[in-house]
Amino acid sequence: MVFLVRTDLQMGKGKVASQVAHASILLYKAALNSKNPFLDCWLKWGQPKIVLRSDSELELSETYKAAVKKQLNVCRVYDSGKTQISSGSLTVVGIGPNKSEDIDKITGKFKLL
Amino acid sequence: MVFLVRTDLQMGKGKVASQVAHASILLYKAALNSKNPFLDCWLKWGQPKIVLRSDSELELSETYKAAVKKQLNVCRVYDSGKTQISSGSLTVVGIGPNKSEDIDKITGKFKLL
Repeated sequence: MVFLVRTDLQMGKGKVASQVAHASILLYKAALNSKNPFLDCWLKWGQPKIVLRSDSELELSETYKAAVKKQLNVCRVYDSGKTQISSGSLTVVGIGPNKSEDIDKITGKFKLL
Repeated sequence: MVFLVRTDLQMGKGKVASQVAHASILLYKAALNSKNPFLDCWLKWGQPKIVLRSDSELELSETYKAAVKKQLNVCRVYDSGKTQISSGSLTVVGIGPNKSEDIDKITGKFKLL
């Protein structure tokens, strides 16, 4: 799983962690429901998770669309706005589990958070 | 779900996020497998997640033991040590979904990360 996190919202560590955890459960649920063929292997390999950063909502949206187009397992997280940031802000795009190279084609340009 | 994260390891934002996401999936899997009666309600309420901090591995271990004793849904995350910190370090204890007051009794003394 790869997570692209917005840095322009200046979320704290706890906020980022909760948003990424949210994404991970959305992806996991969707993977279970769709019988994603990469899920078992991903679990056996210790559930690898990579967290990347972008300072642009547009980049997150474009990444999401590109992942949908490639038929990857993908999700968006919008904050409920109870703390720190405005309600409805797109905070994280999560992708996977899928083939590493398929995810890399879309997210390879982003740096680690 | 409540997550207690070690701050003395000085993990970066991305590292903390991946460790908490790891815990969230462990808890979610365990909740599914045990037919945890709080799971559906927690999902309907938008999967609330609270991230707390402690600078002590001992506090994490004690929190884990206390949650086991109360028969809460609980997990420990140990880092694989590929990046940033030593292999086998206890990084996060996750609890829930359970009754809020039951979790609060154990984690109420910790501050938000």
